[in-house]
Amino acid sequence: MDKIKILGISGSLRKESFHTKLLKVITKMSVEGAEIETADISNLPLFNQDFETNPPEAVTAFKKKIKESDAILFVSPEYNYSVPGALKNAIDWASRPYGDNSFDGKTAAIISGSIGILGGSRMQYHLRQSFVFLNMRPLNRPEVMIPMIQDKFDASGNITDAPTKEKVEEMINALVSWTKEMKTK
Amino acid sequence: MDKIKILGISGSLRKESFHTKLLKVITKMSVEGAEIETADISNLPLFNQDFETNPPEAVTAFKKKIKESDAILFVSPEYNYSVPGALKNAIDWASRPYGDNSFDGKTAAIISGSIGILGGSRMQYHLRQSFVFLNMRPLNRPEVMIPMIQDKFDASGNITDAPTKEKVEEMINALVSWTKEMKTK
Amino acid sequence: MDKIKILGISGSLRKESFHTKLLKVITKMSVEGAEIETADISNLPLFNQDFETNPPEAVTAFKKKIKESDAILFVSPEYNYSVPGALKNAIDWASRPYGDNSFDGKTAAIISGSIGILGGSRMQYHLRQSFVFLNMRPLNRPEVMIPMIQDKFDASGNITDAPTKEKVEEMINALVSWTKEMKTK
Amino acid sequence: MDKIKILGISGSLRKESFHTKLLKVITKMSVEGAEIETADISNLPLFNQDFETNPPEAVTAFKKKIKESDAILFVSPEYNYSVPGALKNAIDWASRPYGDNSFDGKTAAIISGSIGILGGSRMQYHLRQSFVFLNMRPLNRPEVMIPMIQDKFDASGNITDAPTKEKVEEMINALVSWTKEMKTK
Repeated sequence: MDKIKILGISGSLRKESFHTKLLKVITKMSVEGAEIETADISNLPLFNQDFETNPPEAVTAFKKKIKESDAILFVSPEYNYSVPGALKNAIDWASRPYGDNSFDGKTAAIISGSIGILGGSRMQYHLRQSFVFLNMRPLNRPEVMIPMIQDKFDASGNITDAPTKEKVEEMINALVSWTKEMKTK
Repeated sequence: MDKIKILGISGSLRKESFHTKLLKVITKMSVEGAEIETADISNLPLFNQDFETNPPEAVTAFKKKIKESDAILFVSPEYNYSVPGALKNAIDWASRPYGDNSFDGKTAAIISGSIGILGGSRMQYHLRQSFVFLNMRPLNRPEVMIPMIQDKFDASGNITDAPTKEKVEEMINALVSWTKEMKTK
Repeated sequence: MDKIKILGISGSLRKESFHTKLLKVITKMSVEGAEIETADISNLPLFNQDFETNPPEAVTAFKKKIKESDAILFVSPEYNYSVPGALKNAIDWASRPYGDNSFDGKTAAIISGSIGILGGSRMQYHLRQSFVFLNMRPLNRPEVMIPMIQDKFDASGNITDAPTKEKVEEMINALVSWTKEMKTK
Repeated sequence: MDKIKILGISGSLRKESFHTKLLKVITKMSVEGAEIETADISNLPLFNQDFETNPPEAVTAFKKKIKESDAILFVSPEYNYSVPGALKNAIDWASRPYGDNSFDGKTAAIISGSIGILGGSRMQYHLRQSFVFLNMRPLNRPEVMIPMIQDKFDASGNITDAPTKEKVEEMINALVSWTKEMKTK
């Protein structure tokens, strides 16, 4: 069987974002039976339906990456108890126009982190509600919410917290298994 | 007592947006004891925390408008069962940096519409969850969800559906009363 | 392959409940490759964790029915913008004690109806959030929300509204297909 | 001004419930300008709309207590990522029949706790969605979510964790202030 293609998307545009660092760490993990790429959402304009059938180049490239993937891994902070606008904007572009939803049928997993103790959990359930409309197949378990994410990395961007690293690895492996099941169904 | 200042924000960037049209109709309503202005979110870049303390001019102007208002009226479609990314992005900018949340303590109301029959109701409860963090005071009633919004206007952008018009007027008046109560408390 | 066993649960205890009537109609549908049974939640006491390891007979019987099923079909009204307490109570019993969650791995679908036009949609997303913890596999499509459910039946409890009937049949068939896929994975 | 009447409701029926213990601690706090009573939901039957206009005695007494209160304090665990069925069931009874919603216009606050680290936060936002329909006025801040609630008490049921105690006291005082504002409006 071909390798499962996972596309990782960071929901933060901040240069030193812990979420973007975490995603970078994940791309370097050697995962049996999978390859992990990333997509950048920072160069997408605000979604405007007037341009959905003739979108900017960046949108076309973003949608192409999604379509070529089997699974989507969202790694994102929570803003105002919900999904960051920039991430939701990327999802809005990729889901349109009607009949050309790039996410259709793909599996999904979410990792969120926070400076406080809730680990960004509130954004995860908003994102899951969008998955229903997008017809995505989210992983149920494990759920990964990383409290005090600022304390989990060293200066070089490596994860120093062993339980966090193990939980993330457990999720990636679960995502690969779940995606394989869905592909061979 | 001074007039209540309501700031209307459309969540759609589409030129012929029904939501933007509806907001325009609302600004022309003569509302006892209130004046209604609008803010444009289409010229905001994607939120990046690196620039939150030194944001682009458009962000500064947007935040100023919010701060000068007493009440915020969100008029928006639902995208992917949630808040449009562009609208959430505007909220993310205006809520930052920490300690300078432009929405703090303001009252709020939501109008959503849809091509189908649910009237965008799902986005309203996601937005309300953000209001908790933003420390806003949303109106409970009436809730305004406009099904088949495409059938409620004439070619000049006037509301032709009487029940829709009455419901919107009822909401604006309720928002004014609720805001007055909150100001004199 | 064995027939898929669907267990239907009505969230209303009212004797003339439209949801219970609808569930009865569904049990009489001849569905290729499936058999549909129902479970009654009206005789369950309020959940009390003190009794979860030694529950009343009604709870044991309810859990047994769920475990013998492949798919769960929830047919329920919305109360106070969420899941009816009686239905949530049944779910709480069946999910406990820890390590003996009767719903684990089962597929699920939801039908909701309302007197008004929103069709009970708000309760569906609350129920879906519970599905994540319960490790259930909900159907994405079709979603069935029945507005003005009181107008869809004749005096004998038959569905008189053709689009409603077709949509329900489409869902049952989709649930059977989805459950088969998940079983053979 | 008369003292603010707060009614505390525990969402757990377990005899040694940490939430019920916490509520008992709260009733013993001396709060300036307020008196705190509790209501028991364990003796309510499952809600059945057939009996809403002629409910059992326990329901009538529960509704009376709510109506005589100014503010409702929900102290509850999270079950299956949502509101415990028993608590939701109590809310369903008290909100009915149509036109006789006992919660109408009252202020509200929520305290939730959990064995794990999320502190029951997910149930809080489901409860808040019900508050919209119930026309309640929930406190925005502070939000109180108590992680590892099992470690916060001594054998006599006193709170031993100082930050938890302070946070709870801060909430009760905020609820009293907020309720006073709403009453004098």
